[in-house]
Amino acid sequence: MLITFEGIEGCGKSTQSRMVLDHLQQRGVPALWTRQPGGCDLGGRLRALLLGREGDGLTPLSELFLYLADRAQHVAEVIRPALAAGTVVLCDRFTDSTVAYQGYGRGLDVSLIHRLNAVAVDGCLPDLTLILDLPVETGLTRARTRNADQGQTESEGRFEAEETAFHQRIRDGYLTLAAENPDRYAVIPAQGEPEEVFGRVWPMVCSRLGIAEHLM
Amino acid sequence: MLITFEGIEGCGKSTQSRMVLDHLQQRGVPALWTRQPGGCDLGGRLRALLLGREGDGLTPLSELFLYLADRAQHVAEVIRPALAAGTVVLCDRFTDSTVAYQGYGRGLDVSLIHRLNAVAVDGCLPDLTLILDLPVETGLTRARTRNADQGQTESEGRFEAEETAFHQRIRDGYLTLAAENPDRYAVIPAQGEPEEVFGRVWPMVCSRLGIAEHLM
Repeated sequence: MLITFEGIEGCGKSTQSRMVLDHLQQRGVPALWTRQPGGCDLGGRLRALLLGREGDGLTPLSELFLYLADRAQHVAEVIRPALAAGTVVLCDRFTDSTVAYQGYGRGLDVSLIHRLNAVAVDGCLPDLTLILDLPVETGLTRARTRNADQGQTESEGRFEAEETAFHQRIRDGYLTLAAENPDRYAVIPAQGEPEEVFGRVWPMVCSRLGIAEHLM
Repeated sequence: MLITFEGIEGCGKSTQSRMVLDHLQQRGVPALWTRQPGGCDLGGRLRALLLGREGDGLTPLSELFLYLADRAQHVAEVIRPALAAGTVVLCDRFTDSTVAYQGYGRGLDVSLIHRLNAVAVDGCLPDLTLILDLPVETGLTRARTRNADQGQTESEGRFEAEETAFHQRIRDGYLTLAAENPDRYAVIPAQGEPEEVFGRVWPMVCSRLGIAEHLM
């Protein structure tokens, strides 16, 4: 079972996916948390280039291929073996980020990105994708506060530095994806405290995994 | 006019393409020598990963996407602007290397690579491709001697370290490409001294550029 977490900057993907990990592990469900880019050695090397200001000169197409390189390696090296071992894999960003950011955000052909994603993941598709949805301004304020707190303004702030309209296109793109395939996606309102949002996330995860929401 | 130089390791691509550059410049023809990977900032960063032993864990698919990332960036940043300015561009390896190495060599689907190359170059196609052809053993001996001389065994020896059968598939792949499209490709026997090989290369270049072989 592959569960992916998607959404704009500052929507709470990392927080929510790690809370799901904790709860699954408390239940004794074998689970792995990972992320793209950065979930394998190659991704770690590419992450600084993709997310940091040093990637400013990248063309949209080149950026796209770097994400696909990371994805192909990460699926082969980490995700597919974990799934084969019966582990629930929780992935912070996956194929839909590329559709939303490089497609809807940067303006590359969305159907081309779907085709390229299919090549990169080679049949390894999410069973459930949670889109944590909130207004762009709220997300960006959160992300910038976090980056400043962590001193990440330079190292991972390339996307946060984009104009608001860019992030609005991404949010709209995610909602379009969800509307086109309601079986795979769940749109979760992501405003409020982490525990509040988790109260919306957890039932979706339990329902898809076929486990009870509360310990017996 | 984009002229690409292709062939197995040690076939003399770099030597011949630089000799062509010298001769064109002596004629006053504006010309630029460049290479893939490594012809732009991104390529420089990826080159160590792609050609060095640190890239050993890369899956064929991930390796493919990294080459495409370099190619897309290099075309947009270097090749297309030079061509637009009327410069003859000489490129040491281009799209056909990916077809030959990742397709025929690594066994990825060749038609998939053609389609992905088309996305990466976005219409920027070679006008002439010179395939410097020689027996695999001869090429590998030359390449290993060169690497040892330059102390490159560790840094750029990943492909030279592959088995002979791998390089044989690549040579055969190049010859298949040439046979399928004789208008674009010229197969040049690459045995002998550099000046001897250049005596076969230069007439092809002059003919395609419409210039006389000898100064008047």
